Amino acid sequence: MRIVEIREGTVSLRSEMRNAAISFAEMDTSLVAVVSDVVRGGEPLIGYGFNSNGRYAQSCILRQRLIPRLLSAAPETLLNESGTNFDPRRVWETMMRNEKPGGHGERPVAVAAIDMAIFDLSAKIDDMPLYRWLAARHGTGDAQTDVFVYAAGGYYYPDGGTKALLDELRRYLDAGYTVVKMKIGGAPLHEDIARIEAALGVVGDGSQLAVDANGRFDRETALRYAAALAPYGLFWFEEAGDPLDYELQAGLAQEYDGPLATGENLFSAQDGLNLLRYGGLRPDRDWIQIDPALSYGLVEYLRFLDALRELGWSPSRCIPHGGHQFALHVVAGLGLGGNESYPDVFAPIGGFADDIPVTGGRVRLTEDPGIGIERKAALFDAFRGLMS
Amino acid sequence: MRIVEIREGTVSLRSEMRNAAISFAEMDTSLVAVVSDVVRGGEPLIGYGFNSNGRYAQSCILRQRLIPRLLSAAPETLLNESGTNFDPRRVWETMMRNEKPGGHGERPVAVAAIDMAIFDLSAKIDDMPLYRWLAARHGTGDAQTDVFVYAAGGYYYPDGGTKALLDELRRYLDAGYTVVKMKIGGAPLHEDIARIEAALGVVGDGSQLAVDANGRFDRETALRYAAALAPYGLFWFEEAGDPLDYELQAGLAQEYDGPLATGENLFSAQDGLNLLRYGGLRPDRDWIQIDPALSYGLVEYLRFLDALRELGWSPSRCIPHGGHQFALHVVAGLGLGGNESYPDVFAPIGGFADDIPVTGGRVRLTEDPGIGIERKAALFDAFRGLMS
Repeated sequence: MRIVEIREGTVSLRSEMRNAAISFAEMDTSLVAVVSDVVRGGEPLIGYGFNSNGRYAQSCILRQRLIPRLLSAAPETLLNESGTNFDPRRVWETMMRNEKPGGHGERPVAVAAIDMAIFDLSAKIDDMPLYRWLAARHGTGDAQTDVFVYAAGGYYYPDGGTKALLDELRRYLDAGYTVVKMKIGGAPLHEDIARIEAALGVVGDGSQLAVDANGRFDRETALRYAAALAPYGLFWFEEAGDPLDYELQAGLAQEYDGPLATGENLFSAQDGLNLLRYGGLRPDRDWIQIDPALSYGLVEYLRFLDALRELGWSPSRCIPHGGHQFALHVVAGLGLGGNESYPDVFAPIGGFADDIPVTGGRVRLTEDPGIGIERKAALFDAFRGLMS
Repeated sequence: MRIVEIREGTVSLRSEMRNAAISFAEMDTSLVAVVSDVVRGGEPLIGYGFNSNGRYAQSCILRQRLIPRLLSAAPETLLNESGTNFDPRRVWETMMRNEKPGGHGERPVAVAAIDMAIFDLSAKIDDMPLYRWLAARHGTGDAQTDVFVYAAGGYYYPDGGTKALLDELRRYLDAGYTVVKMKIGGAPLHEDIARIEAALGVVGDGSQLAVDANGRFDRETALRYAAALAPYGLFWFEEAGDPLDYELQAGLAQEYDGPLATGENLFSAQDGLNLLRYGGLRPDRDWIQIDPALSYGLVEYLRFLDALRELGWSPSRCIPHGGHQFALHVVAGLGLGGNESYPDVFAPIGGFADDIPVTGGRVRLTEDPGIGIERKAALFDAFRGLMS
């Protein structure tokens, strides 16, 4: 059993959205197809992977470092002990040969794209949907067959009013979501509070509304927002300050009783462990959002989950960033708390199988082998383009 | 005043060396030339930059993200208020537009290469050597005209014996160095101790010998080495564990009285601040090795120095990784403690002006405008190749 070929390409995630930190007009992502010599129904099995949104495509690292290392490795060094399938951990270690420790940006994104393709391929070789494959190997054995998802959006609109925002949130509720998330930090505090109050008029209770500052507050602003947000009993207050400023996060946790969420801009198990060690987060209420498709993939995410359990946390406190099908399988297979969803943006990588509706704030897993990217027409078309 | 063109290319740093973490057989780095419309002696002034060793070239990030942002910016937005020179901070902020916070790997390397070229260019426009230009703007005013440098090497050799190691260290002493550094962690502890004892027979005193584990020890191994190293009174014990494992570093500082050094694999001011906050390092004896040419350049390094001073540290506790001419100017201009030097490896970016010898463990700065890359023939040839 061996890898015959690895293709990589770039797809635009262009969107008119803007959060408090960046515009997404230039955003793109890498697609990776790992072609095996395993043949089913006359066709070679192919694993598909991509990186999640927000950190750009990584073609140089893929083409110049990771792919050559995998293609030049002795094929048996990438397999499990019995040689019946690929071993994602051994593939990971081969990709990371001659890479220095530390420096967890861009490279984790590139590694994640190949890692996803390897997990897709491995589950396909065993003819199982990825979430059941993961539950059998790394979970408690019982996979969730559907997963809590919340709708991320709540953007700022050019006219500055709240009508477009409220229409957007109503669309999410109509589509079956029970929790929605909106941006804050892109306007002065009093405007943000007016937006939040208007949003609560649509979604009902504060427990159904999360807010996201995208990491742009200094300590003083974070605490000022915390005091203003406290009365609303929100679902969570996300990424107030710089993602690596654990002291700011710990100070916030001391002042704000409600749930906090962060982690989408931490890209390694060690960075995640530092957040748990120093960030003051509370295992009974806070949320960790590390996205395996930005942070060295699932092999590394499993290391993070081990560290998290060792510190007395439950994996159910993890709700990954990214709103993609891969994380949906990871959540269902490993007993995490839920998954992000972007109903309106990040096509073609955002979203889940085309024909599965959100019901009561939950989305059902598909039973196709692997991740089921084939059940997502626009994304599968992009991969077919890569293979043609 | 404007940037006319930015060229980037890749140069191999291929070397047969191997440390405890990686082989350098595939290593390369990016060269960047920023061409201005300022003409001196009939020629346009050009700023030259490169990234430091160990993290690979970054052509995709340069070509696809950073360079287009600079070339599409309105020229006056990159200048100081009076329009008499480029403003490195404004250039930096333009490069980082639409980049999310966190994720400090690869991108800091790419930004650093352009940042270096901008500082080289700015000092040339003012017709000053960079170290004097920096001392006037950001230092205490008094530049050091020569700088302490130590010789980094002390490699493992294929035969496993110490003869080649001792020959290497003797070469460094003969060349004028007073402190040398050798690798540890690539052999069992008892072999490393035998190598250290042999090395001490050549260099004399433990205060002239530093050791470097390249981040590969777990906590237990780090403490075992610490106990074995303590009697030798070494110059420093460098990067025992994972560069982001501040808890390991703090545990080591509690057990090991001698000087510790780390930071070459931290790539942002925030990561450096976390090291100071959580790593247990002692301002009276330990050393910080953040390399501005890997970590978003000097604009970011100045932010780090501000944070360091605020925590009661002196910049004289910083001895940057990298052994390159840019750091030599930064050290001399800003009152840092010294600089790394690689007498044997990392051509063409390693090393200082060709005709300046090391004397009594110090190397003199050149008085040419900018960094003085033109005084380093092999490196300047590479840049001439880029421009032709």
